[in-house]
Amino acid sequence: MSPKAKQMIPRDDNRPIGVFDSGIGGLTVVSELRKSLPSEDICYLGDTARVPYGNKSVDSIIMFARQDVGFLVSKGVKAVIAACNTVSAVAMDDLRKTYSAIPVIGVLDAGVDAVLKSGARRITILGTRATVNSDAYRRAIHAVNPSLIVDTMACPLFVPLAEEGLVDEEITFKAFDLYLSEIRREPPEVLLLGCTHYPLLKKALAEYIPKSVRIIDSAEACAAYAAEFIKKNSISASVDKHGQERYFVTDMPNDFHGHATRFLGYRVRHVEKVSLA
Amino acid sequence: MSPKAKQMIPRDDNRPIGVFDSGIGGLTVVSELRKSLPSEDICYLGDTARVPYGNKSVDSIIMFARQDVGFLVSKGVKAVIAACNTVSAVAMDDLRKTYSAIPVIGVLDAGVDAVLKSGARRITILGTRATVNSDAYRRAIHAVNPSLIVDTMACPLFVPLAEEGLVDEEITFKAFDLYLSEIRREPPEVLLLGCTHYPLLKKALAEYIPKSVRIIDSAEACAAYAAEFIKKNSISASVDKHGQERYFVTDMPNDFHGHATRFLGYRVRHVEKVSLA
Repeated sequence: MSPKAKQMIPRDDNRPIGVFDSGIGGLTVVSELRKSLPSEDICYLGDTARVPYGNKSVDSIIMFARQDVGFLVSKGVKAVIAACNTVSAVAMDDLRKTYSAIPVIGVLDAGVDAVLKSGARRITILGTRATVNSDAYRRAIHAVNPSLIVDTMACPLFVPLAEEGLVDEEITFKAFDLYLSEIRREPPEVLLLGCTHYPLLKKALAEYIPKSVRIIDSAEACAAYAAEFIKKNSISASVDKHGQERYFVTDMPNDFHGHATRFLGYRVRHVEKVSLA
Repeated sequence: MSPKAKQMIPRDDNRPIGVFDSGIGGLTVVSELRKSLPSEDICYLGDTARVPYGNKSVDSIIMFARQDVGFLVSKGVKAVIAACNTVSAVAMDDLRKTYSAIPVIGVLDAGVDAVLKSGARRITILGTRATVNSDAYRRAIHAVNPSLIVDTMACPLFVPLAEEGLVDEEITFKAFDLYLSEIRREPPEVLLLGCTHYPLLKKALAEYIPKSVRIIDSAEACAAYAAEFIKKNSISASVDKHGQERYFVTDMPNDFHGHATRFLGYRVRHVEKVSLA
């Protein structure tokens, strides 16, 4: 084999994938990544000292996101996933300019990709007020196919309901009545859960909306998108490897482990408190 | 009049009163202060870049609160009101040690004072999870009168309901069912609203609970307590003065003015974005 041919064979890239979110919502993405990319090491950062981002200004969100990505880059990651819809709705252009040497994948891009692949013509996107106000989902979908009908609905009570574990209670369905009664009357083909907290409400949502509606979960979509990206760019970890996880948070509140387990599905280990500012 | 006698006459103290909160909830205290102390200047700080504090660790809350008070002290205030139940539940000892030259009044002290003055023997305190977990209200009440029966109830959905303006809807009453059905069955004499967001739900709460229950609103109690403190310590502003207000925030989200008006009752003027960290 000539030296030139040797260079063409991709080497395994065992650097971790960086994932960040304003808090622990992004753990739903880690949970899905674990399934789709079992060999990959994951380095997660939750900015729990400043959570949530959804009620902050665009300027602040961009500043926070730059610090988040900068931290992950300092940990030697090969790619960064913004597992935060608010960040991926308002800060992606800035992040890609600021960190041009590292690929940054947004959960929003992944959601949009899944919507476009679904073939649906009528889509409703649920998200936080910040995500919905940014109109980023609609713009990204219309940039590819302007003929699709895209409705959006801000569901600000869904995050506290998910965090409180109120995922299948009478009050959960009252919140559905508040935000989704229109969807029940005139169902779209696809309902995109544009917030990493919302997968916790997916089971109850599926009960509430007509069976004809396909629910696309942005955490699942993000993991599939990342898996494809990693493969396409030949930066996969060794296949025989067992992927490890490291967790960093900017604050460690009392109930951290209980909350994190609810989102991740198993207990977080190797968690370290760090300072970003 | 001898020079000595002249010194005994208290001079007007026209320095502002500092008020701070994690966000805009403390504006309910400003609104009440405006009524009880119309001559006083008020300097308000809302740490909107890190709101809420209720889901942060005690260490982080103390660090944030120190920065908040430090900022107000730099503005030349004569006293500081911690219009944040979370801060006044966990950080008062630290703040009083760190800033021993300036009086720091906590909304919790004010609430406890009002409860004790009410003569009630059975009290229920509503608050955020952080406030309730700290057990600070119960400890402060029992330090004075250990024979009183004090129940506490964390109502984490009340803050998002108040912020969303969902203060008199079906879902508001579903949240009451979730947290307060026990209170309806076995009513206390006094219900203390131990969170500066909760006054927005007061009207609906009064409909929900039995008429026999007296609701003490910590924002109202705090303003009364501060007025008494100012008078007792002879640091009142000139009586003929019309009190001015200045507002500082660490972030200015899109919907700031709408939200602030809901809490304050009128539009915030002279608001400036500042950096604390």
